[in-house]
Amino acid sequence: MKDILQNHPNVLPFLPMLYVGWADQAMIPSEVDLIHKRMNEIEWLTKDERDLIVKWSDPATPPSPELLAEWVALIREASEKMDAQSRQSLADLSLQMAERGVNGASVWDTPEARTAITDIETALGYVNLKDHRNILSDAQRQKVIELDAESSFDVEAMAKLLDGEYVDIKNKMRQIFADPAFQLRIIKNKEEYREQTLQWTKLMAAQGLGAISYPEANGGKDDIALYASVFEMMGYHDISLCIKFGVQFGLFGGSILGLGTQKHYDKYLTRVGTMDLPGCFAMTETGHGSNVRQLETTATYDREQDMFIIHTPNEQAGKEYIGNALHGRMATVFAQLHTNGEEHGVHAFLVQLRNENDELMPGVRIEDCGYKVGLNGVDNGRIWFDNVRIPRENLLNRFGDVDGQGNYDSSIGSISRRFFTMLGTLVGGRVCVPMAGLSASKKGLAIAVKHALKRRQFGPENEQETLLLDYPSHQRRLMPLLANAYALDATHKFLLKRFANSAEEDIREVETLAAALKSYSTWNTTHTLQMCREACGGKGYLAENQYADLKADTDIFTTFEGDNTVLMQLVAKGLLTELKEEFENTNFWGLFKTFSQQFVDSVSPFNDSGNTDEAHLLDTCFHIEIFKKRERTMVMGLGQDIRRLIKMGMAGYDAFIRNQNTMIALGHAFAERIIIEQFAQFVEDCEDLELQNILKKLCDLYALHTIEKHKGWYLENGYMKGDKTQAISRMVDKLCGEIRSDASDLVDAFNIPPHLLMAPIAL
Amino acid sequence: MKDILQNHPNVLPFLPMLYVGWADQAMIPSEVDLIHKRMNEIEWLTKDERDLIVKWSDPATPPSPELLAEWVALIREASEKMDAQSRQSLADLSLQMAERGVNGASVWDTPEARTAITDIETALGYVNLKDHRNILSDAQRQKVIELDAESSFDVEAMAKLLDGEYVDIKNKMRQIFADPAFQLRIIKNKEEYREQTLQWTKLMAAQGLGAISYPEANGGKDDIALYASVFEMMGYHDISLCIKFGVQFGLFGGSILGLGTQKHYDKYLTRVGTMDLPGCFAMTETGHGSNVRQLETTATYDREQDMFIIHTPNEQAGKEYIGNALHGRMATVFAQLHTNGEEHGVHAFLVQLRNENDELMPGVRIEDCGYKVGLNGVDNGRIWFDNVRIPRENLLNRFGDVDGQGNYDSSIGSISRRFFTMLGTLVGGRVCVPMAGLSASKKGLAIAVKHALKRRQFGPENEQETLLLDYPSHQRRLMPLLANAYALDATHKFLLKRFANSAEEDIREVETLAAALKSYSTWNTTHTLQMCREACGGKGYLAENQYADLKADTDIFTTFEGDNTVLMQLVAKGLLTELKEEFENTNFWGLFKTFSQQFVDSVSPFNDSGNTDEAHLLDTCFHIEIFKKRERTMVMGLGQDIRRLIKMGMAGYDAFIRNQNTMIALGHAFAERIIIEQFAQFVEDCEDLELQNILKKLCDLYALHTIEKHKGWYLENGYMKGDKTQAISRMVDKLCGEIRSDASDLVDAFNIPPHLLMAPIAL
Repeated sequence: MKDILQNHPNVLPFLPMLYVGWADQAMIPSEVDLIHKRMNEIEWLTKDERDLIVKWSDPATPPSPELLAEWVALIREASEKMDAQSRQSLADLSLQMAERGVNGASVWDTPEARTAITDIETALGYVNLKDHRNILSDAQRQKVIELDAESSFDVEAMAKLLDGEYVDIKNKMRQIFADPAFQLRIIKNKEEYREQTLQWTKLMAAQGLGAISYPEANGGKDDIALYASVFEMMGYHDISLCIKFGVQFGLFGGSILGLGTQKHYDKYLTRVGTMDLPGCFAMTETGHGSNVRQLETTATYDREQDMFIIHTPNEQAGKEYIGNALHGRMATVFAQLHTNGEEHGVHAFLVQLRNENDELMPGVRIEDCGYKVGLNGVDNGRIWFDNVRIPRENLLNRFGDVDGQGNYDSSIGSISRRFFTMLGTLVGGRVCVPMAGLSASKKGLAIAVKHALKRRQFGPENEQETLLLDYPSHQRRLMPLLANAYALDATHKFLLKRFANSAEEDIREVETLAAALKSYSTWNTTHTLQMCREACGGKGYLAENQYADLKADTDIFTTFEGDNTVLMQLVAKGLLTELKEEFENTNFWGLFKTFSQQFVDSVSPFNDSGNTDEAHLLDTCFHIEIFKKRERTMVMGLGQDIRRLIKMGMAGYDAFIRNQNTMIALGHAFAERIIIEQFAQFVEDCEDLELQNILKKLCDLYALHTIEKHKGWYLENGYMKGDKTQAISRMVDKLCGEIRSDASDLVDAFNIPPHLLMAPIAL
Repeated sequence: MKDILQNHPNVLPFLPMLYVGWADQAMIPSEVDLIHKRMNEIEWLTKDERDLIVKWSDPATPPSPELLAEWVALIREASEKMDAQSRQSLADLSLQMAERGVNGASVWDTPEARTAITDIETALGYVNLKDHRNILSDAQRQKVIELDAESSFDVEAMAKLLDGEYVDIKNKMRQIFADPAFQLRIIKNKEEYREQTLQWTKLMAAQGLGAISYPEANGGKDDIALYASVFEMMGYHDISLCIKFGVQFGLFGGSILGLGTQKHYDKYLTRVGTMDLPGCFAMTETGHGSNVRQLETTATYDREQDMFIIHTPNEQAGKEYIGNALHGRMATVFAQLHTNGEEHGVHAFLVQLRNENDELMPGVRIEDCGYKVGLNGVDNGRIWFDNVRIPRENLLNRFGDVDGQGNYDSSIGSISRRFFTMLGTLVGGRVCVPMAGLSASKKGLAIAVKHALKRRQFGPENEQETLLLDYPSHQRRLMPLLANAYALDATHKFLLKRFANSAEEDIREVETLAAALKSYSTWNTTHTLQMCREACGGKGYLAENQYADLKADTDIFTTFEGDNTVLMQLVAKGLLTELKEEFENTNFWGLFKTFSQQFVDSVSPFNDSGNTDEAHLLDTCFHIEIFKKRERTMVMGLGQDIRRLIKMGMAGYDAFIRNQNTMIALGHAFAERIIIEQFAQFVEDCEDLELQNILKKLCDLYALHTIEKHKGWYLENGYMKGDKTQAISRMVDKLCGEIRSDASDLVDAFNIPPHLLMAPIAL
């Protein structure tokens, strides 16, 4: 080999990249192409030298391990001669290897030569020298580690980008939570904890935060987006406070605002916003949690006394899990309205629960739900009504009213449509809950990442132990979750804007979006926090390190404000309805089958099912296209199958139920498509190139990791070949390694108030 | 169509099965074959009738939806004429459709005809008429539901099978836990909870249970399997008790038994077993959790006083997370042994922590770890030693001893081998912990299944709401987990036997098995309990329904007794060592590459990568083979790659780390292969055919659901085609539906003491 190289000295600078290329499992065609193309631009290479490089980069004739070991020896020899102070990139190493004359000069000592080599290596993405410690000298290794510590972007700029347009209210929340009155502490006794939560809620109200989404006349700023931002920030504080706050101002107050009319605003809303009138949102019943349309509590109009009689007909019809039930003086109670012997479906009524002395009103029975998995600072209870009489004006009458004769009047004819319209006014909860969940995930990630950058365990013989975050398995655990957090941040911003600015006709679309993202995002929260706890080992199990509460408190997010599994089916039904309309509007339904076949055919060539080029794998258009394809294929298959089953005589309900698992999968596919689109848009809109660069990596990781998760589906359906899914997995590994260098800054950019991030392992 | 059928009346009885066949997405080839084959055995079919059946079952020309709808009308017409009392199988329906003469007789009224039809339908597996409610009359539907309620097996016999050879001790534990002294209650305050746990531990000791694995001379029965069974049963009770019990008798007592010698047994072991001497197992340090070989506490021999000086050299070297630290009087302390200026590696020493009045000994500092995610009844603490002197005989000297001159002597020369030998004596924890975790999973499953068989939500218009467990999505959530529980039960039985009867030379194998199964099984516990909590919705979030403690207490199982991620890498290393030996022993290492290629080639034809026949999919040999193939392919690929990297000059440590994710995946593949083998063996060994029948279904579900989980890998590697993985998914759906009918009995067979299964939603 020495002979060969003596005769072909200009090959030497290529050895580092060839070595790294082969060490990365195999030379893939795009790498080979790239090397050959750029090699031709270096004019001082002889033909023999070119041939040698071509031979040594040919996947058909891989260099023997012995040859590679010789390369390593040569590379290490060069590396040891290098100055530890100079920038120790792979390119430096390459140029260091160049043959030098007696005066130390070399044909490679030109800016052009450096550019040529650097270009190749940058294009190949061979930057992570840490993985190739054996080719580096000790000093170089140290330098690599230090280089890692350098920020690739401005953390403050990223924090500002994440705070977005609500930076002021978020900063205000940071200030408020810095107050000693809001200091977090572990309280195990539920009565004591509830008292603390109640006091915190009152303090929040005193800051004008409770009323923030109400009209100005009621002490508010008429801004639901501000409310959502407050809610998001509470996810960093105590989540019991977050939920109690949400029950009081979002659900109780929100039901008055959304379902009531001016008379109710005048009489109650201001007092709700100041916490002067604590109240409940009493919808769920023991017997009816998800299927609330069938709830059994009745509200019967009594014409003689001009009152409604609120009644719980049986034990199972008791209101269940009602937040604020132990502190509330009033409740919005959902009940089946009966007037003059007629049924009008579910309506909402304001019912007084307790008097000014906090004594229960006659006919009202309340029980404590007791301890829960988490959220033990929230006073959940069960409520039963025994013929409780309330004034007629306590009907929240925006969508339906009853006059003194018991005549019912509504602008919406169908009971079913009326019910869903009422529910629609409450979509805010589904927009906000996952935002608080995302904050909890970010906090969990910040703790786990910071721990993994301090904690060392095991390592090479006679060297310092390795940082947890330098283990590929640890990167694989945490980096995709970090990408998810950024992806969801961008998507929740989009949803909030869409929701806050929605017109009447957008409601269905916003509901579908909120249902899908609430489910996807809260499941992601549960998963993220579990992974983070495990990644912190025993330390993660100590309550002081926060996961105890983070996990326990957010665990119910997948259930409340609509059970995720039920919501995902709603999403699928919404998509099927859209599909149907799409075809009906164009009179195309009959051509459905033909068209869907065309669809599959038309996208196949674009898809590049075997393309493993790095540029292609990192192409955002490819990501969006392949996510869309999955969603579209699923919705079409589902539509066809349900149609087929119904046509052959199956009842609609049964046809849906038979496809239930596919519907849930479709809900996920829809959520993922929305997320990749919105995250990609967020990246594109970012004007700071440094930020854009790292955000693009996170977006790539979100996309490829999600594709990897579904690789079975893509392979099964012929959209990808095995080579491609394997290349995607390798790319995920690589992105995890790259993002690892910025991990600390990426969690710092969440800008979590330090007094709320008080886990000892994160300090 | 009326015309056609009038001319071919004998086709009528085939309509129900044809309809059901088409409703199940598509007629798959094996179904078509089966229908044609059996059809030919029915001699009174005319050629035209045969042709018609062939045509109507041809996947190339599926019947139109309109035709299928006509079939439904005819079937329903027949079904409505049927007596609701008679056994309403699909076969009955078929025969009811047969054309009848004026006297009501038909050629189909023979036992042979019934057999022919029944055979086809049984073979096709069309038993779940619930999915085809539209072809049934109301009375029939009711009957189908009742049929579901019938047991397919004897629950008591299954319970006996699961109790296995340790039925006596398990029944004893059931009795003990029925005692009011062991009544479970929610205790939030840690001091109060720890006191309760301490009392329970003493009560257990008083029953002779603590010493059960110790020699008879020390009050025991010298039976580690009995100990494991007690531990398993404690998983149904309070898991804080389980862990405190394990610390005292398993870890502290176990370290004396495993690492000490007769003098230690005589002096301490009896008192440990009676809880007269409460103690700790002080191995982990803050700075060294997984990498305990590098722990920093020192034990220096002081020749003058003939004592060891136990010392914590820095704050991070404090013993961390030590169970029983607040109650313990003594601790087995792991420290680096120094004698006469020489290092001998980690050894264990008995160090007194407190005197008889529970006052700390001089030089000992102990801090409470505070609240944790769960297990708050266990008193974990941190311990530091400031030059604490202990007598020389307090060295647990089974594997290494020091004489009065400070001379060190050990039968094991290498420090490293000595360390691993010492660790090996502690493998019992890894055998027992997942057994308690499995009990917790079973409890969680029992609650979720029973809830899902009571709880109804949503349903077809104007009908009773649907039971949760009748939803395919709910079956998909819970049934595979039920199969996992049975699969792991069989496998833990195997591991326990293997461990209890292991000879010296088996230790490495048992260690690999224990590491793999501990990891796989405890991850399964975390996952199972999370899924169960979610499947119970808000009810699952109430502490009274048990998931709060089940989830929180078992969450640490994935970390302690060896972090799962670290253990899986140990497993992979073990498998690589085996592989290396395999080749070295046969001088085959050089032919490695050739051989592994041959391996891949040789199994490919066997694999039937496109075979979707039901018989094949349910063939246990196929399952075992394909699990093995995955494991073997991975270990070979891994071996090759690490070898390649090392050969080309990479350090061994780096070569392993680069393959870390594959190593962890291999650990899983190994665990899964062991589980399918052991569960299949358990099924084969079962002599009761009824039990065997349902166990086989659970085994099939375990196998196919696991394959489905890895379908991306199988497709990527060319072991399966898309058609096959899709057929496997359909089969998983089907098995979930079938096992659903037995779900209640399957959880009853766990025989969990009713007073421990006290969740209100499960009653």
